Amino acid sequence: MYKSISPSNYHVLHPRPVYLIVSRNKSSSLNVMAASWVSPVSDEPFLITVSIWRGSLTHQYISETREFTINIPSEKHVDIVYKAGTTSGREVDKFKLLGLKTVKSSVIETPGLDGMLGFLECTVVNQVEVGESTLFIAEVKAVHVLEELYTRYGWDLNKAKILLHHSGRGFTTPSKLILALK
Amino acid sequence: MYKSISPSNYHVLHPRPVYLIVSRNKSSSLNVMAASWVSPVSDEPFLITVSIWRGSLTHQYISETREFTINIPSEKHVDIVYKAGTTSGREVDKFKLLGLKTVKSSVIETPGLDGMLGFLECTVVNQVEVGESTLFIAEVKAVHVLEELYTRYGWDLNKAKILLHHSGRGFTTPSKLILALK
Repeated sequence: MYKSISPSNYHVLHPRPVYLIVSRNKSSSLNVMAASWVSPVSDEPFLITVSIWRGSLTHQYISETREFTINIPSEKHVDIVYKAGTTSGREVDKFKLLGLKTVKSSVIETPGLDGMLGFLECTVVNQVEVGESTLFIAEVKAVHVLEELYTRYGWDLNKAKILLHHSGRGFTTPSKLILALK
Repeated sequence: MYKSISPSNYHVLHPRPVYLIVSRNKSSSLNVMAASWVSPVSDEPFLITVSIWRGSLTHQYISETREFTINIPSEKHVDIVYKAGTTSGREVDKFKLLGLKTVKSSVIETPGLDGMLGFLECTVVNQVEVGESTLFIAEVKAVHVLEELYTRYGWDLNKAKILLHHSGRGFTTPSKLILALK
């Protein structure tokens, strides 16, 4: 009934939320990449992790300024997210390519992206090497969301079409709310 | 347009996949808990992280044997997942309470759960303290999936109703596949 597949088949843990990470170097150049290997890891303080390949421009930028924003795209941003995840900021200005505009952060210098469902301002507090990547552990300093889409229980699933990454060009969104029995 | 909410509102990163973590102590007692703060962090080798509260029985068990399984529930397991996440193995035998049966693992001693969509066998390779929790970094040693639900691109979203956790008793599943433009 179960079949064993390759123990490197990480898609077994997808679909999962995908984000646009904005980073900044010391000269205030910006870069953006797509990342779905992001997770909350502590609630008090609110800490998150993001795994970033050591060869990437984002890795270089975060290492320089120790901060970044996590931007939450919706279904309509699917092509932007895919392009941001398959091009390198070393070869092209991704902000220009993707027509992205920024919004000011309230605590850190690195901006968020305009038009997303929301964004988080993060500062790195620790890091661990994992394979060819660095796991950045960061504290969330501020959270901004589109007011009409966010309830006291989180995103309104009828309105906020959070984007989840499946595999390659494949994405999806959450469906209806299911309530567990008390 | 954006409103700022509490910087400890981690639900902004939900809904996200939720799993049942099976752990074992040195005497081979088993425990199960629900966890959604799980993420792949490296593909070669395939490493994952899971954040576990230091006061939990699961934390004690994983610290003893340095291994666990990640079990992937579907929509139909929503009540089991909620109960597994809101009861403590220190007070009740959750396997008995939830009517769970195990299946043998192929590499580690800790078993998987019968009837799930699939499970991963994991051994701890590193750990980092994060707030009141420990972030266990583990290598995936084997992956088992229900054959008819898994394609070369990952889960068949028409058949595999992966469970995502939203907030409290609220869960959801992925909807239809969306393909980004090449």
